[in-house]
Amino acid sequence: VVEDVHFTRPGFSYEDIGHKALAVNLSDLASMGAKPAWFVCALELPKPLPRASLLAMAHGMSALAQAHGIALVGGNLTSAKQLAITITAAGEVTGGRALERQGRPGDLLYVSGTLGEARLGLKLLTRGGGPKALTLRQRRPVPRLALGLLARRFARGAIDVSDGLAQDLGHLCAASGLGATVELSRVPVAPAVRAHARSEKEALDWALGGGEDYELLLAVPKASAAAFERSCGRAGEQVTCIGELTGAQGLKLRAASGATVAPPPGFNHFGG
Amino acid sequence: VVEDVHFTRPGFSYEDIGHKALAVNLSDLASMGAKPAWFVCALELPKPLPRASLLAMAHGMSALAQAHGIALVGGNLTSAKQLAITITAAGEVTGGRALERQGRPGDLLYVSGTLGEARLGLKLLTRGGGPKALTLRQRRPVPRLALGLLARRFARGAIDVSDGLAQDLGHLCAASGLGATVELSRVPVAPAVRAHARSEKEALDWALGGGEDYELLLAVPKASAAAFERSCGRAGEQVTCIGELTGAQGLKLRAASGATVAPPPGFNHFGG
Repeated sequence: VVEDVHFTRPGFSYEDIGHKALAVNLSDLASMGAKPAWFVCALELPKPLPRASLLAMAHGMSALAQAHGIALVGGNLTSAKQLAITITAAGEVTGGRALERQGRPGDLLYVSGTLGEARLGLKLLTRGGGPKALTLRQRRPVPRLALGLLARRFARGAIDVSDGLAQDLGHLCAASGLGATVELSRVPVAPAVRAHARSEKEALDWALGGGEDYELLLAVPKASAAAFERSCGRAGEQVTCIGELTGAQGLKLRAASGATVAPPPGFNHFGG
Repeated sequence: VVEDVHFTRPGFSYEDIGHKALAVNLSDLASMGAKPAWFVCALELPKPLPRASLLAMAHGMSALAQAHGIALVGGNLTSAKQLAITITAAGEVTGGRALERQGRPGDLLYVSGTLGEARLGLKLLTRGGGPKALTLRQRRPVPRLALGLLARRFARGAIDVSDGLAQDLGHLCAASGLGATVELSRVPVAPAVRAHARSEKEALDWALGGGEDYELLLAVPKASAAAFERSCGRAGEQVTCIGELTGAQGLKLRAASGATVAPPPGFNHFGG
C-alpha cells in the first residue's frame, strides 16, 4: 500500500494504515481459501516520521495479525520519499488445492457482503472527512478469511474484489477463458452507498467499479450451490448470487428491464 | 530497493535496477547458507515509465533468477511517486540449520572478496559517471550463494555486508551479545579503492563503512578454520581472516601500530 494511492494522511490514522497494509494481503489468502501462516513486512519511510506514528502503525498491523494468529517473521526498512508498506503473506491449504481464478460455463457467481462502501469512504476522505463509520470500509477492510475457508469446499474459483467487481470478474473470466452475465438488480449495493450516491446509476457504478471492498467473488458449480448457500447461512456469511459464467466471451450486465449496460471502468493504477 | 536510495537514474540502467533488486535479497539467503527457491516481486512505478524500461528491468531480474534456477511466483503492481522494487525471496536449507547472526568468543571472523568498491562506484555515479567497470560492484552486486552453501558446513554464524563491514559486524556482535577485534591491516580493501581514494584512511573508511559490497562476514570456530580455508581454496572462494569475536563488548579496530581506531559510521537510512 502506497501513500496517496491506497491511503492518505491525515485521512487515515497510522493504525488504519498498518491494518490496511496487512488486510489487503490477507484478503488475497482469503480468496484462495488459505489459512494465513506468516508475513514479512518492508517499510519505506519518509524521514520525518515520528516514533509514535511508527508504533501506531505497528499496533494496527499487529492487532489484525493477532486476531488471525499469524506472525511477522521478517522484513526490511528503508528511507523513501513516500510512505509505503509492502507485505508478503503466506498461507496454508490443508487437503486439496487452493482456490484459483477459474470457473466453468454455468458456474454461479456469488459475491460476499455488500459493495461500494469503500468507494464512498474514499470520496468522503478526499473531501476531507465525513462520519467515521462511513469511511471505515475504506480505512479498515476486513479480509473474508472464514468465508474463504468455507468456500473452498464448494467453489471452483475465487478472487477478491480489490479493483472493483466488474474488473475483478474480468480477471476471473480472462483466467478461465470465459465470459459472464451479471443481473444488476441482484448486485448487493451497500445501503449507505444508496443513501449517499446522487443517483441509482452512481450507486451501481460505485458497487461495480469502486474497488477496495475486499469482498470475495466466487464461482460455484450449480450442483454445489444449494449446499454452499446453506453452509453460508449456518456460518452467518452473507453471500448473494449475482449471475453466472458463460461460454460466450465478454461481460454482460443486465438491467431489470432486460437491457444490457456497459461496465464501468475499474481502478487502473496507471489511468490507461 | 528505492530510487535515490539504492539506485539512481540514469546512473543505473534498468537492467542494473532489476538485477540489484533481486541480488540484494539473494545475498540475504547466501548469508544463511540457503539455496534460493522462489521470489515474489512488488513494483511501485511512477506513471511515465516506458514499456521498454519495464522490459529491461524484468530482463535484468530474470537473467539473475535463471542463473540461480529460481522462479518468480507472484507479485504486485502499483503506481507511486518513486520507482521501488520490493522482493521477498525464500530459500531452502537441507540438513541442519540455517546460518544465523551468531558466534562465540574466539570464533574467527572471515570476510569474502574485497571491500569498498561499491562505495567507490556510488561516488563515481554521484559525480555523473566514471569507467563502467568501476561502478559495476555498485550496480551489479553478486550474491555469494555458493560461498554461503559451503560456509554452512563450517561457520557458526554469518551476515552479508550491506550496511558496511563495521555496522554489519556490529549487528552480528549485538545478536551474539559479544564484541570483536578487527586487524585493520588484514581488511581486504579492493585495489581499485586504494587507487582512487585520496588517502589510506579514506580507502579504509570505504572498506569498513561503505556498504553494499554484499560480501559475507562469517564467524568460524577456530577448530574448523583450517578446514574452512582449505575448502574455500578448492572452491576458488577468496576469504580473509580479519579478526575474532570477543567476550568483551564493543568493536575494536587495531591498526598495524597496535593503536585502536574508532569505527567509521555505517550507512544509516535515517541519517541518525
